[in-house]
Amino acid sequence: MRFTSEQRLDDGVVEREFTLGEIPGTLWTPGPASASAPVPLILMAHNNGLPKSQSRLVARGRHTAAYGYAVAAIDAAGCGDRPRSAADEQARADLRRAMQAGEPVDEIFESLVGPLVANAAPEWRTTLDVLLALPGIGGPVGYSGWMALGIRLAVAEPRIAAAGFFAGGFVPRAQREEARRVGVPLLMLLQWDDEGNPRQRALDLFDAFGTREKTLHANMGGHTGTPWFEGEDVNRFYGRHLK
Amino acid sequence: MRFTSEQRLDDGVVEREFTLGEIPGTLWTPGPASASAPVPLILMAHNNGLPKSQSRLVARGRHTAAYGYAVAAIDAAGCGDRPRSAADEQARADLRRAMQAGEPVDEIFESLVGPLVANAAPEWRTTLDVLLALPGIGGPVGYSGWMALGIRLAVAEPRIAAAGFFAGGFVPRAQREEARRVGVPLLMLLQWDDEGNPRQRALDLFDAFGTREKTLHANMGGHTGTPWFEGEDVNRFYGRHLK
Repeated sequence: MRFTSEQRLDDGVVEREFTLGEIPGTLWTPGPASASAPVPLILMAHNNGLPKSQSRLVARGRHTAAYGYAVAAIDAAGCGDRPRSAADEQARADLRRAMQAGEPVDEIFESLVGPLVANAAPEWRTTLDVLLALPGIGGPVGYSGWMALGIRLAVAEPRIAAAGFFAGGFVPRAQREEARRVGVPLLMLLQWDDEGNPRQRALDLFDAFGTREKTLHANMGGHTGTPWFEGEDVNRFYGRHLK
Repeated sequence: MRFTSEQRLDDGVVEREFTLGEIPGTLWTPGPASASAPVPLILMAHNNGLPKSQSRLVARGRHTAAYGYAVAAIDAAGCGDRPRSAADEQARADLRRAMQAGEPVDEIFESLVGPLVANAAPEWRTTLDVLLALPGIGGPVGYSGWMALGIRLAVAEPRIAAAGFFAGGFVPRAQREEARRVGVPLLMLLQWDDEGNPRQRALDLFDAFGTREKTLHANMGGHTGTPWFEGEDVNRFYGRHLK
């Protein structure tokens, strides 16, 4: 792991870019005053592999770190600015065309997001190994954001102790099926009128999760309309399970 | 209004029983230290007119008052220990019989809860008038608990500024219809596996409410299994809208 830049923000949070082999990542850690003991780690991923540099993700990373967590985001294989396979590019082109034509997109999403999740998960686990070896970062580990990847990681990765999911992206068949194997406490945020993300599918998934400690928070509005107070609720959720 | 007893609790909350004509009520107010200015008022009602003396309602009243609210519960007409009409008694007997026989109960509930809400609402409004005239109690006014009554009051009573609903009781036709006229911020708590309270009806009602500031919190378990942290979430909701 190699840190390539470091920036100290107004609230003491340190934002560092790193690379780990081919994986580019960002690590946010709380200021030294609030971190005398090792802090819990939260892995933060953006729906459908959007870039880690996306402004809403960056804001969420900084905000969460200020609450006393180490927060990491990476561009895993096929995600963010990482190279895409020819099949990925084809699927994205098919998706644009089908959406413009108003045709069904489920199978195209499946062919795009299914491999994305499968390929991203091992890189997140590799990153987790390395981050937990850094001084000042301890367990337990939380997950935040992209629901499909979070299901995969919560099932595959026993170090994940709590998961905050944002219900606003396509969840491939494999993750819909393994949802019942998710056994950690989880909080799922749902935007009631999220464009292109059918509400009933999110409710069905919430119902399917195997854990008994699951909570759903639904609010009005579209994909990017999550109210500010949900950010605080999510931090309280992590506070109950990671601290 | 006549106060008939007064008790000071460990956390400084004062619990007073009162009567207002035929209406018996309980008023919880925060200790003097935390209440130098008039405090907001929360009307707290229990599903389907259960008694104000019911232990979970009492615990909730005390807890909420400790956060700096005046909280009032009454046994309105037909509710709690108040006399029941012959028609009420008949409907309750019909209900027990139908439930034991596994027969449909919707129409019986309608004949029982419909009049209960219609008769209780004016008594709650009368109580509100009197409570707001007491020294130390100001506006704004919140509502907490029984959803059917809360819908009626939120529509009829402009002084109600925020409503916390517990989705776990029969909602009569009239209130299902006027749900779209509810315009205040609301938080709805839903127990995902609530026995005898179909989840889909609660989700449909949440969808129907006219306000754009509505939030749903769903948790696993049955009617009485609401997790402790939801009590804090509800108080934060009131904090955003009543303070």
